[in-house]
Amino acid sequence: MNEIIQKALHVKNAARELAVATTSDKNSALKAIAKALDRRRDEILEENEADVEKAKERGLRESLIDRLKLTNKRIDGMINACHEIARLKDPVGEVIDSWIQNELRIAQVRVPLGAIGMVYESRPNVTLDATILALKAGNSVLLRGGSDAIRSNLAIAKAIKEGLKKSSLPETSVEIIEDTDRKNVQEMLHLNDYLSLIIPRGGAGLIKFVVENSSVPVLETGVGNCHIFVDKSADIEKSIEIIDNAKTQRPGTCNAVETILIHEKIAAKILPAMAERLRAKGVELRGCEKTAKFIEVKPASEEDWSTEYLDLILAVKVVKSLDEAIEHIQQYSTGHSEAILTESYSNARKFTASIDAAALYVNASTRFTDGEQFGFGGEIGISTQKLHARGPVGLRELTTFKYIVLGNYKVRD
Amino acid sequence: MNEIIQKALHVKNAARELAVATTSDKNSALKAIAKALDRRRDEILEENEADVEKAKERGLRESLIDRLKLTNKRIDGMINACHEIARLKDPVGEVIDSWIQNELRIAQVRVPLGAIGMVYESRPNVTLDATILALKAGNSVLLRGGSDAIRSNLAIAKAIKEGLKKSSLPETSVEIIEDTDRKNVQEMLHLNDYLSLIIPRGGAGLIKFVVENSSVPVLETGVGNCHIFVDKSADIEKSIEIIDNAKTQRPGTCNAVETILIHEKIAAKILPAMAERLRAKGVELRGCEKTAKFIEVKPASEEDWSTEYLDLILAVKVVKSLDEAIEHIQQYSTGHSEAILTESYSNARKFTASIDAAALYVNASTRFTDGEQFGFGGEIGISTQKLHARGPVGLRELTTFKYIVLGNYKVRD
Repeated sequence: MNEIIQKALHVKNAARELAVATTSDKNSALKAIAKALDRRRDEILEENEADVEKAKERGLRESLIDRLKLTNKRIDGMINACHEIARLKDPVGEVIDSWIQNELRIAQVRVPLGAIGMVYESRPNVTLDATILALKAGNSVLLRGGSDAIRSNLAIAKAIKEGLKKSSLPETSVEIIEDTDRKNVQEMLHLNDYLSLIIPRGGAGLIKFVVENSSVPVLETGVGNCHIFVDKSADIEKSIEIIDNAKTQRPGTCNAVETILIHEKIAAKILPAMAERLRAKGVELRGCEKTAKFIEVKPASEEDWSTEYLDLILAVKVVKSLDEAIEHIQQYSTGHSEAILTESYSNARKFTASIDAAALYVNASTRFTDGEQFGFGGEIGISTQKLHARGPVGLRELTTFKYIVLGNYKVRD
Repeated sequence: MNEIIQKALHVKNAARELAVATTSDKNSALKAIAKALDRRRDEILEENEADVEKAKERGLRESLIDRLKLTNKRIDGMINACHEIARLKDPVGEVIDSWIQNELRIAQVRVPLGAIGMVYESRPNVTLDATILALKAGNSVLLRGGSDAIRSNLAIAKAIKEGLKKSSLPETSVEIIEDTDRKNVQEMLHLNDYLSLIIPRGGAGLIKFVVENSSVPVLETGVGNCHIFVDKSADIEKSIEIIDNAKTQRPGTCNAVETILIHEKIAAKILPAMAERLRAKGVELRGCEKTAKFIEVKPASEEDWSTEYLDLILAVKVVKSLDEAIEHIQQYSTGHSEAILTESYSNARKFTASIDAAALYVNASTRFTDGEQFGFGGEIGISTQKLHARGPVGLRELTTFKYIVLGNYKVRD
C-alpha cells in the first residue's frame, strides 16, 4: 500500500468518527490546534525559512515568494483563525427542511461531506485554513500541497496532528502527502472510493488540470474575469470610487475587476477623471478604439477581454447599450462576480436576471464576493461552478445532507 | 462543426433564453408538448414497433424489451406527466436566503442550472421525462439515448420540438443526438464549455463509465444495494410486512432491499415465517452460516453482500448486534437507502446518525426513496453522490442559485 492509499484510508475511516463528533469536541480540537501552532511556532518559521531560501535560489517570482513567506504575524493570524472558526455555528445537524408525506416524517438533515482532498500550490496557510474549516464541518482532509512549500506544510501539519492528538478527534482526521511528485495528484483525483470531493486551490493551470482529470467530484474555485458596467444614469463620482476600489484595493484577488464597460453616453464625462484617478495609483489602462477617443490608452486586444490580470492593469470598453454590455459579459465572464452601476431600476433588474455568475452586484464593488464579507466567517475559496456550491465556500458548503425518514412500520402501496 | 458541437451550442444558447422565461411560458410549452405527443401518437408507436422488432431480432432480454416497449397507455402516461409537471411550483426565483451584511442586501436566489446533458439507455420514456423536468426548472437538454431505442427517441423528440415550436420557448431548448456511436458519449463528457451537468441514467456500467470519464460535473444516480436491519425489539409481524414490501413490490428498482440483517436474538422467531412468506412469492433466499441454522437457504457468498440483484433474490445475514449491522452496511452500502426496524429509541438514533446514505429509514420500507413518494412530484433519478443533490432528484435539484447583491455605491474597506 503506497503513501497515498494508506493516508486516504486513514481519512476515510476518520470521517466516520468525525460525522458523529459533537460540536464541543470539534471546537476543543480547534483550540488544541491553535495551542500546538503556538508551541511549534519556531519550528514552523525555520522550516518556512528553508522553503523561502530554496525558492529564492530557484528564482521564484517575488509575488510568489511573498505568498510563501510566513512571519510571526501570519502565524498569529493562523492561531486566531482557529479560535474564530471554533466560534462559528456548527452547520451539522441543521434540519434544512422537514415535512409529512405518506404518513412518514421526512427530514432533510445537514451532515458532513466525508473526506475532502485539497490540492494546492504555494500558500502554506491553506494547510491550516482548509483543515480547520473542514474539521468544523465534520470532514477529514487529505492535503497535497506544492513542493515549494512542502517543509512549511509538513511543519504546520505536524502541529495540527499534535493538536488533534490532545483532542478527542482522531489524529488521522488530517493527513498530508509528503511525496510531492506530480503523479500523486493524478492518483488522488481517482480516489473515488475514499474521497467525497476534491478542491483545487491555486492558479488557472492547476484548476484546469484537476477539473479535466478528476473522477472524484470537484469544487472548482477561483478564476475571476470580473466586469463592471457603468450605465449612462450612474453617479459619476461614486462610480469612479467603486472602480478604484474594485481594481486597486487588492488587485491580486479573484474578485478584483478586470474590465470596465462604459455606456457611450457617459464616456466623455467619466473616462478622463477615472483615468487620472487610476493612473495616480499606477494602473495601466488598455482600451477599445472608442475609449481611445476620450483618453490615451494602450489598444486592447481580443486577449485582453478574456484575461484575468490579477495586477494593476484594467481593460476598458465603451458600449452602445446595456444589451451590448450584457453580451460582452456573457461572452467573456468566468461566472464569478459582475456589477452594474446604474440609477435605472429596469436596467438593474435586467442585468441581474440575464447574467449567469455566482454574484451579481448593483452599485457595489465586486470585491465583496468573499466568505468573510458575506458573513460566512471564513471560506475555502470562491466556487465558479454551478453544482453544489456557488460563490464563497464556507462551512455550509462543506456539508451535504441526508434524509431521515421515520415511520410506523409503513409499507408502500 | 460536427453534430454534437452544433447541438451543444444550440442548447447552450437556448439556456440563456430559458433562464429568463416566465413560469407561464414554461407551462404553456409543456402543454403544447403534451398536445404534440398526442398528435404524433401513431408515428411514435410505429417507430417504437420498429425498435422493438430490431431488439427481438438481436435477441435482447425480455425485461429490456419490456422497458423499450411503448403502448397507447404509456403515451397517455407521458401526456399526463407533461400536465403534472406544469402544475408543479416553479423552483426558479425562490429566495433561498437573504440578509444584510456590510450595508449590502445579499439574496441567494434560485436559478436554472443551464444546459444539461442526459446520457441514457433503453427506456424511451426518459426522453420525455428528463426533458419536461429540465424545462420546468428552466434548463435546456442535450439528449443522447441508446441505439436500441433510437427511432422511438427521435420520434418523441420530434414531438417535443413540434410542441416547443408552438410555444414561446426556443425550439432548440431540446436537442437529441442522432448518431448513436459510442464515441459520441465520450465527446459529450468533455463539453465543459457548453454543459453545466451530465446525468447518466441506466445500468451500473454506463454510470461508472460516465463518472470515470466526464470532466463535466456528473450527477451520479442509481445503484442501490439497500439493507434492512431487524433489531431484536422489532415487531415481528410488521417487520415481515416491510421486508416483503421492500423486496417484492417492485424488485427491479434501485430502492428495493437486497440484504436483510437480523439480530440473532430475534432470528429464531422471524426467519421461518419470513422465509415462508417470501418463498410463496417466489423469492430465492441466500443466507450466512448462522441463517442456515434457522431456515434452509443457499449459502451466501462474499459476492452476494455486494450485489444489487434487482430481482427476486434476497441475501440474509444474522448479526450479533446493532454495531455488527452498522459495520456490515458501512462496508457494502452504495449510499442509497438503509432501514432499521426497532422499538429502541437509542438504536434508531445511532443507526440514522452513523450510516452515510441518501435516506435512512426507521420502521418504513426502503421503497419510499422516490421523488413522487417524497412529494417532489417527479424525479429524474436517485442521486447516490453527496455533492449538490442526494436522494430523489426533482425540480429543485435541477437548479442552482446566484447571489444578487444590492448596494448604495458601496466599496470595500
